[in-house]
Amino acid sequence: MEITGKSRIMFVLADPVGHVRASAVMNAYFQSIGQDVAVSPLHVRPDDLGPVLAAIRCMRNVAGFGVTIPHKVAVIRHLDEVTATARRIGAVNFVKRTAEGRLIGDNLDAPGFLGGLRKQGFDPKGRRAMQIGAGGAGRATAFALAEAGVAELLIVNRDAAKARQLADAVEQAFPDISVRVGQGNPADFELIVNTTSLGMQVGDPLPLDIKGIGAGHTIYDIIVNPAVTRLMAEAAAQGAGTIGGGVMLDEQMGLVARFIAP
Amino acid sequence: MEITGKSRIMFVLADPVGHVRASAVMNAYFQSIGQDVAVSPLHVRPDDLGPVLAAIRCMRNVAGFGVTIPHKVAVIRHLDEVTATARRIGAVNFVKRTAEGRLIGDNLDAPGFLGGLRKQGFDPKGRRAMQIGAGGAGRATAFALAEAGVAELLIVNRDAAKARQLADAVEQAFPDISVRVGQGNPADFELIVNTTSLGMQVGDPLPLDIKGIGAGHTIYDIIVNPAVTRLMAEAAAQGAGTIGGGVMLDEQMGLVARFIAP
Repeated sequence: MEITGKSRIMFVLADPVGHVRASAVMNAYFQSIGQDVAVSPLHVRPDDLGPVLAAIRCMRNVAGFGVTIPHKVAVIRHLDEVTATARRIGAVNFVKRTAEGRLIGDNLDAPGFLGGLRKQGFDPKGRRAMQIGAGGAGRATAFALAEAGVAELLIVNRDAAKARQLADAVEQAFPDISVRVGQGNPADFELIVNTTSLGMQVGDPLPLDIKGIGAGHTIYDIIVNPAVTRLMAEAAAQGAGTIGGGVMLDEQMGLVARFIAP
Repeated sequence: MEITGKSRIMFVLADPVGHVRASAVMNAYFQSIGQDVAVSPLHVRPDDLGPVLAAIRCMRNVAGFGVTIPHKVAVIRHLDEVTATARRIGAVNFVKRTAEGRLIGDNLDAPGFLGGLRKQGFDPKGRRAMQIGAGGAGRATAFALAEAGVAELLIVNRDAAKARQLADAVEQAFPDISVRVGQGNPADFELIVNTTSLGMQVGDPLPLDIKGIGAGHTIYDIIVNPAVTRLMAEAAAQGAGTIGGGVMLDEQMGLVARFIAP
C-alpha cells in the first residue's frame, strides 16, 4: 500500500478512536480489489463535527468517510443529502464526497448486518429477535430486522423513550411487524443482537443477562474490536451460535466501494 | 502498514496534489523505524487553508502535517507558533499538532537541503551559488546556502521584487554573504538550484538555459516527482553533477519524526 497524491483519501470519524479497525479493513479491501484508496481514522469530538465536515468539503481528493460512535445520527444535519434508506433509519454510517464538495450520507449498516446474518446461515424471516440498544447502529439493525420479516422485535434500551421512538419509526415503516419496547427474557428469542458499545472495553459488564441462552440461540454482537467480545465468548461457552461485528463490516466493503465510486 | 485507531495520523497539504510523493516517503520511513504513523496527502486550495487548519486542530489523533506548494508561506498566519528558523525563513513546511490542538510550524527544508547537498559530497562553503525561484521552498534554500557560507548567492526570479525581498532578508540575517538579484550566466556558478515547479509537468520548459553547464557544475533540482527532471537529465548529459529533491526529502525524515514526537 503506497499513499500518494493520486490516491483517493477516506476517513473514519470516531470518538473514542483507539478501538477503530474499520480503516484497516477498508484499506485491505481496497487493496484486494486494486483500488488506490487510503483510509485513516480521525478522532473527532461531537462538538467538532461541524468544522471537520466543513473542512472535508474543501479536501478535494477526499472520496468520503465512514462514521461511527457517536456520530451516526448527529452527522445527518451537516450533510447535503441523505439516501432514502438512511433517512428512514435516521442514521448514516458512510458519506460520499462528490467532486463538487457535496456530502451524501447512506446507511450500509443495515445491508451489512443482514448480509452477515445470512452468510452465517441465519434467515431472520419469521424469527423472534431482541436487540439491546437504540443508538445509531441500533436504528440500522432494527430496520434491517423488520425489513427481513422477523416475527417479533423487542428493543431493550437504557433510555426507554429513545427505544419507543425507534419502535414507532420501525412500526410506521413496517406496519406488519410487532415491535415491543422494555425488558424481556433473552431465552425467549432466537436472535439476540447487541448494538451497544458494552464489550468494547476490557471489564465492561455484559450488555444483558445470558442465563438460559444456549443451543438454538444466536448472539450477534456488532462490536468489531475485540473480534470476540465477552458476550460472544460466554454465549458460545453455553452452546449458542455467535456472530461478530467483523462479519457485518466485511459485508459492507463492496457496498462502500460502489457508493464512493467517482 | 496497517492504519488503525491507534495510529498517529499526518497529512501533506498541497495544490495541485497529483505529483505528491512525500506521503509515501514518510510512510515508508515511519514503518522502517517502527512507528505507527500514517500520512495522507490532502488537496487543499489556498482559499481553504483557514477552515482546513481549524478542523485539523479538532482532529485529536493528528500528529501534524507537511505543507508544500503553494502553502509554505501562507500557512504561517494560521499557526499558533513558528520556530525561530521558520520565522527567519518566512516559510513553513512541517506543522506539529500538540495534544491541546496548538499548531507549531517549522522549516525542515533548509536542513534537508543542506544535508542532501553534503551527502552528495558538495560542501557549499566558499562556493558560488545561483538559485531559480524565491517562493516558499526558495526562501529555505537561500537561507540554507547563506548559513552554509557560500561566497556568493544570485537569486533569479520571474518576480524581481520578490527576489529582492528575499535577498534583503538573507543579507540582514547573514551580513557577510553577498546576495544578488537578477540575471546571470549559469556557467559562472558552481552550484545551481532550481526551486521553481518548472519540471514537475511533462512538457515544462527548462527553468534556466544550461548552455555552458558541464563538469564542475552541480545542479540541485528540489522537485521530488519526477525523480529525474528534464533539467537534471540534460545537465547530466552535459557532464554536470545532479541532485534531486528526493535526497532533500529523505534528509528531512528523521527531523520530522523528532519534530512530531509526542
